[in-house]
Amino acid sequence: MIAMNSAVFAESGRVSPEGPKLYPEFEHLGPASDFIEEIFQIIEHIPLFEDMSRQEVGYLCRYMLCYGAPRNATLLREGDEGQHLLIVLTGNIDVIKDTPKGSRSIAVAGVGSSLGEMSMIDGARRFASCIATEPTDFAVLTRTALTEIVIDHPGLGSKLLLLLLQVMTRRLRDASNLLLPYIAGDAV
Amino acid sequence: MIAMNSAVFAESGRVSPEGPKLYPEFEHLGPASDFIEEIFQIIEHIPLFEDMSRQEVGYLCRYMLCYGAPRNATLLREGDEGQHLLIVLTGNIDVIKDTPKGSRSIAVAGVGSSLGEMSMIDGARRFASCIATEPTDFAVLTRTALTEIVIDHPGLGSKLLLLLLQVMTRRLRDASNLLLPYIAGDAV
Repeated sequence: MIAMNSAVFAESGRVSPEGPKLYPEFEHLGPASDFIEEIFQIIEHIPLFEDMSRQEVGYLCRYMLCYGAPRNATLLREGDEGQHLLIVLTGNIDVIKDTPKGSRSIAVAGVGSSLGEMSMIDGARRFASCIATEPTDFAVLTRTALTEIVIDHPGLGSKLLLLLLQVMTRRLRDASNLLLPYIAGDAV
Repeated sequence: MIAMNSAVFAESGRVSPEGPKLYPEFEHLGPASDFIEEIFQIIEHIPLFEDMSRQEVGYLCRYMLCYGAPRNATLLREGDEGQHLLIVLTGNIDVIKDTPKGSRSIAVAGVGSSLGEMSMIDGARRFASCIATEPTDFAVLTRTALTEIVIDHPGLGSKLLLLLLQVMTRRLRDASNLLLPYIAGDAV
């Protein structure tokens, strides 16, 4: 076992405190490793960290930056390019989709939820917008950081990829079940 | 570069020719490495092998078994337990979902398609059935084999997991787009 604590993370973190400023308009809170104790407190709500040891989560947090956004801030905008996902640390998010008949709320995401995985994985444009309905802190995992994790810590990288696969599978099962009435022809 | 050919695969393959008989009722064709030349011929149609070198595909094939099924055979049955996916090598598959109003065809899968990823990933029951509409040869990747690949060849394992993530993301985007009219309220 490698001894790890917040000081170690801060010192050896992969992301610089001045790191990629994806969100220049929001408060930049620094590397996620500075928030490791807060993250441990909500870890049971974070599917992406399921069954990970504290040490493993500590390693991952060195590859993520945290931001604080005010109420009503747009964290992801439908149609934008983007290659990162968010993990909600505090607050609450409304997921909004533009339709020919106006905006529709299609989901609500709370503490521990991840958002934006699809574009992080395939690099295509955001499917929906994510709006903070409360002041919200969140951690960012970029595709570049994911690649670095896989290279630097292959075992941990595979575990994270498997957890991402589980998150995507859950979403696909949910979407498929929502489609069922239409498959059956009940609603067409 | 490691010299690789069919004889090497057969000799050092991870799956025994007598390996896990998931499909005792179908013709057992042996390890996928025995079909490497046929697989290379259709490789551009196999999203799970996208951008992989011939050597990498060769390694993966050592972890998969092939089967041949007659027309009308059920390759995956809705509601069954199962922790493996299929890659269609020849033939054609109809994907069928039971609904309160009877069976509905929800997709068709041809050469190179993969099927059954959701249960392979989450271990939950099959969402739909897959029926061969022509005599069909297919390769099987079990969850156990995937785990072995990740352990034995971490770099290759990560690449395969990323490709699986891309396949799942494409499915989720497709399902989400199908849901759009219902989100908009056009169809309810």
